[in-house]
Amino acid sequence: MAVYTDVDDDEARAFVAAYDLGEVLALKGIAEGVENSNYLLTTERGNFILTLYEKRVALEDLPFFIALMEHLARFGVACPTPVKARDGGALRTLCGRPAAIVTFLPGMWPRRILPYHCAGLGRALALLHGAGASFPLSRENDLSLAGWRRLFSSCRKRADEVSPGLESELDRELEVLEAAWPRDLPKGIIHGDLFPDNVFFRDSEVSGLIDFYFACTDFLAYDLSVCLNAWCFEEDGSLNVTKARHLIEGYRAVRPLRPEEIAALPLLARGSAFRFLLTRLCDWLQGSQGALVHLKDPLEFLRKLRFHRSVTGPSGYGIEV
Amino acid sequence: MAVYTDVDDDEARAFVAAYDLGEVLALKGIAEGVENSNYLLTTERGNFILTLYEKRVALEDLPFFIALMEHLARFGVACPTPVKARDGGALRTLCGRPAAIVTFLPGMWPRRILPYHCAGLGRALALLHGAGASFPLSRENDLSLAGWRRLFSSCRKRADEVSPGLESELDRELEVLEAAWPRDLPKGIIHGDLFPDNVFFRDSEVSGLIDFYFACTDFLAYDLSVCLNAWCFEEDGSLNVTKARHLIEGYRAVRPLRPEEIAALPLLARGSAFRFLLTRLCDWLQGSQGALVHLKDPLEFLRKLRFHRSVTGPSGYGIEV
Repeated sequence: MAVYTDVDDDEARAFVAAYDLGEVLALKGIAEGVENSNYLLTTERGNFILTLYEKRVALEDLPFFIALMEHLARFGVACPTPVKARDGGALRTLCGRPAAIVTFLPGMWPRRILPYHCAGLGRALALLHGAGASFPLSRENDLSLAGWRRLFSSCRKRADEVSPGLESELDRELEVLEAAWPRDLPKGIIHGDLFPDNVFFRDSEVSGLIDFYFACTDFLAYDLSVCLNAWCFEEDGSLNVTKARHLIEGYRAVRPLRPEEIAALPLLARGSAFRFLLTRLCDWLQGSQGALVHLKDPLEFLRKLRFHRSVTGPSGYGIEV
Repeated sequence: MAVYTDVDDDEARAFVAAYDLGEVLALKGIAEGVENSNYLLTTERGNFILTLYEKRVALEDLPFFIALMEHLARFGVACPTPVKARDGGALRTLCGRPAAIVTFLPGMWPRRILPYHCAGLGRALALLHGAGASFPLSRENDLSLAGWRRLFSSCRKRADEVSPGLESELDRELEVLEAAWPRDLPKGIIHGDLFPDNVFFRDSEVSGLIDFYFACTDFLAYDLSVCLNAWCFEEDGSLNVTKARHLIEGYRAVRPLRPEEIAALPLLARGSAFRFLLTRLCDWLQGSQGALVHLKDPLEFLRKLRFHRSVTGPSGYGIEV
């Protein structure tokens, strides 16, 4: 869960008074999310989410994220829409931190993933990529190759504390990724972190995508590979090929994949598994920093990475070119 | 914060389907409370609180608590009202735990206590005591004298780890309390745990009292002494006499205190300080049991206990008999 910053009632009232939202009826910290402090804000106008941006979100990136959510919502993506204060701004300061109020999205994120979830996710991801095509801003993916090298340098010396031999395995992997990483796949706005807890469903349909704070400009198929890693593996570490096929076919039904994108999937999936392995490893080694957060097991993604290394072609994901 | 039990979306939907609440639109764990798992449940009918009862709440006491909230709400106390399922029951099972849905109360609990909060609290407490007078059930206070003896026995051996000399100080204190504890003050339903995070305000008025899971039958003035300890001390450990006077005068404006109740206040306040000191001490020594809970400092109540020991009469709380 994540409530790093405790917002008191006086501050909350003063903050919300800058908006046309009526009286604050309740403000309750939400025990979900990891990066930011999130509150469910209930006012006379209904439910909203109040987010205070903490540590990993860079101040200079916030206007990008806010503008992106506004753009996507305008283009039909069910994502949080930033609420503007009376002065027209959507980004303000609360308890010394940048903060924003966004709309509340109905739906629940699925705990037990079934193939239909993956199909719905695939369609929603392709729609997101389509809506992102007309977004005028761009942001480099700071958690791609260069970022991986930097993160790995910061935690490699202690990697073997987590698993013996991990440092050398990651070292070799990063060299392979740096040498083979694609250069000319279709690019655009990607979500970058579309794990199940960021995707709400009502019945069998996606009703909302949240948490755009890793969004950036990168290969669209990389986003799909993140979803492969986040949605299609079973607890025992095996890939569920049915889920993978539903995900990819759901995506293709909205945005066709080029042959070179399909061919690159195993490598992209290695890269995205490496990215989550690395960030979790660094978090793990740095320990919890006082906040009430469950640390996530980095080795889950080592097993996924090894799986993708063994995949020789798209049929490994149950699909055909 | 408290989310001990993770409720998945399928289970939530199946659970809520037993009520006339429409579709589940959202279920978010709330990062508040310590004893139970609390979720903000949003359905097509609005916001509700879903509580899963954990460890410290005894199963056999739940019908008492549910009936009490129903009674108090009917008698005008702004407290959560249990929502009945279609089969007429308000207490069901979710994820293997007893669970109930209660109404959502507007308001925020005050982080920075001002005297007017204490006055409003005093009035609300007296109204609660009045509404409780017609409640037909009773429940012994298992955190009064006998409970203190039992708790102290379970953690006394390690008390000095928290503060040198604590064991012998608490031993002497408990003997005094056992010898001098009142026997014939007015009794009735008490809340027993009316700390600021259990009292919601809208503007200057109390808009809701929550968390009735320590409610029981005991001296009404003991409840007032809990509030004295919970609301009227400053961070530096000193009693704010203005707040104490507002609390007690607010209470008296609704329900007059008898001279013997006023005379007993210093002793009752020693007892309630002792009670919170003890439960915090035991929690502290047992450590967090895996849940994401901030442990509370037991010594805060040692300082309060010592203060009350020094009070020679009601004027110590800024009031007159």
